[in-house]
Amino acid sequence: MEPWYQQRLRRVQQSLREADLDFVFLTISPDLFYLTGYTSFVSERLTLLVIPPEGRPTLVCPDFETGMVAHLADGVDIVGWAETQDPVALVRETLASLGCPSPRRIAMSDHAWAVFLLRFQAALPAAQFVPASCLLAPMRRVKDQDELQILKKAQDMAVEGFHQLLQQPFAGRTEKQVAAALRHQFEVLGFERVEVILVGSGPNGANPHLAPTDRVIQRGDAVVLDFGAVYRGYYSDCTRTVHVGPPSDEFRKVFETVRRANQAALAAIRPGVSCESIDRAARRVIEEAGYGPFFTHRLGHGIGLEVHEEPYMVEGNQLPLEPGMTFTDEPGIYLPGRFGCRLEDVVTVTESGGAALTDYTHELIVVD
Amino acid sequence: MEPWYQQRLRRVQQSLREADLDFVFLTISPDLFYLTGYTSFVSERLTLLVIPPEGRPTLVCPDFETGMVAHLADGVDIVGWAETQDPVALVRETLASLGCPSPRRIAMSDHAWAVFLLRFQAALPAAQFVPASCLLAPMRRVKDQDELQILKKAQDMAVEGFHQLLQQPFAGRTEKQVAAALRHQFEVLGFERVEVILVGSGPNGANPHLAPTDRVIQRGDAVVLDFGAVYRGYYSDCTRTVHVGPPSDEFRKVFETVRRANQAALAAIRPGVSCESIDRAARRVIEEAGYGPFFTHRLGHGIGLEVHEEPYMVEGNQLPLEPGMTFTDEPGIYLPGRFGCRLEDVVTVTESGGAALTDYTHELIVVD
Repeated sequence: MEPWYQQRLRRVQQSLREADLDFVFLTISPDLFYLTGYTSFVSERLTLLVIPPEGRPTLVCPDFETGMVAHLADGVDIVGWAETQDPVALVRETLASLGCPSPRRIAMSDHAWAVFLLRFQAALPAAQFVPASCLLAPMRRVKDQDELQILKKAQDMAVEGFHQLLQQPFAGRTEKQVAAALRHQFEVLGFERVEVILVGSGPNGANPHLAPTDRVIQRGDAVVLDFGAVYRGYYSDCTRTVHVGPPSDEFRKVFETVRRANQAALAAIRPGVSCESIDRAARRVIEEAGYGPFFTHRLGHGIGLEVHEEPYMVEGNQLPLEPGMTFTDEPGIYLPGRFGCRLEDVVTVTESGGAALTDYTHELIVVD
Repeated sequence: MEPWYQQRLRRVQQSLREADLDFVFLTISPDLFYLTGYTSFVSERLTLLVIPPEGRPTLVCPDFETGMVAHLADGVDIVGWAETQDPVALVRETLASLGCPSPRRIAMSDHAWAVFLLRFQAALPAAQFVPASCLLAPMRRVKDQDELQILKKAQDMAVEGFHQLLQQPFAGRTEKQVAAALRHQFEVLGFERVEVILVGSGPNGANPHLAPTDRVIQRGDAVVLDFGAVYRGYYSDCTRTVHVGPPSDEFRKVFETVRRANQAALAAIRPGVSCESIDRAARRVIEEAGYGPFFTHRLGHGIGLEVHEEPYMVEGNQLPLEPGMTFTDEPGIYLPGRFGCRLEDVVTVTESGGAALTDYTHELIVVD
């Protein structure tokens, strides 16, 4: 187990003691990967890292997968369960062997399946469960230098793939075909996983999360392209809105408003200011241009081992920014039935302000 | 909303009444797709279908995604929540508007995030939560004719991609390169999503779930290839073990044992017999050949909208088979440090026995 994983495990144990928790239970998840480097399929077969406040954690996993976790044995004890065993009963035995057979408070992976939580609640009726994000999110939302380098590289690869995509005409291709072409670029570039590519043309662009359709892209369309992929476990996430052929005056006005909103948010970033203030900085620009009701989502989300994670740039979130926090700056304007426009960069908080990790033009891109 | 979704929703409501449940809560999941055809990203933003025992269900989802679900409005009421609203509070209002502000028993998506379950438990302290699979699994595990046709087509596409892969030599390529080549075949064939491709060469094949590595495949290796992808929402899943160059006598013996175990399981399938009896039929063959301790996993898993779902072919599962159930028949033998061998078909229960949906040779395949 690499030394930084050992360090992170010790930090979680410190947090467990401070929060007066008896254990944290982590299923296969970004949290588990962050602490151990291990991931596998999320499935009906329980894999669970049991972390006590002191001493060695125990990883409970399927017997026939213990060969895949043998390299962790210097940091955690490994207990396998056979296909005919009840893994929840085995976890209960593990708690007893760790000296705490009847825990009072347990932190559980936020993304664990509800069915596992129900089984643990039934098996440990005296325990109160809380989300593990209370321990893990404060660690994960501040990136260290190694993480920032990986995130920068992921953004560079994403814009490189997008730049290649722009070398071919858009008109006449379907949204799905454009998405497949970008996906192929990403695979060639060496991303380990491509999860979501959105291509919203014309009126489809006004649905911010619509999956690519068979709609044929036409001259006169705005096309919102939102793309990202995973490099060494870390996500990229970028949006550019291109125009097929010459844009209308209204599209130009919308595009310019979104661009200024993105820049206003970046300019507002500095340590100590609240997340909601960054959302407000962008929203004010869009409201003043008269498009307030059409900016229908928060400004952005943290990014790292998940494409959406803390901190969220949204009204009501008073969390203060810290150096190393990394999130998206993605204002958008969506005119129902007509078009959408979004501009998204990944940005990070520095000691003195904000800096974009996404290095790609904000100019209006006109394609054929 | 297509008529079969309406029918399925009515069947769930019937089950709710029979089970004396007040609601079922479904997040973005295969269950939701099965009942409505709708899917989207699983994320920190709550999307929830609230199904009461009588009357119209309500879909609670992010405001800016309501445009994506407008086509469901003939079957369900749609309620959007703004980014600054609390969706759990909105769900509570929805329960009140459905005439049941203090439910006693709620079925929750098995795969919902634990953090959502914790929030619902806090917001509805009088409610007991149970896994929604108690309602959905009995429906989903028996496939109708349309589902069987899609599953058959998915298996046909998977073996077609594999057959193409065999036209190139294996020796000298890494496991990752072989996996990437098969992934590319699957994309060309039109699968909508490729999730897992395993390529376990030589000793790596003895870890049944190991992800492909940078190991260079060599002459003399057995290579376990486990592959599947998603077509119209339904999974394929197939394993073949090939040998690079002439196999040893021991590999031949292992291969032949696995082949006979697969066939013994298929021959044992008929309506009314238990799931565990199918596992036993295969296991007996492997035990009699002296490899019992090396068949370290259950025989198989149901397959449909998930790659692993009910029914599970495992000791202890006395569920009787029914026509239309569809699952994998995948015995394996894993000799630590040496090699693995697995043979996996998707099979279905007919009125009188069992039938393979996977149509590909069981003969030993020797590649260069």
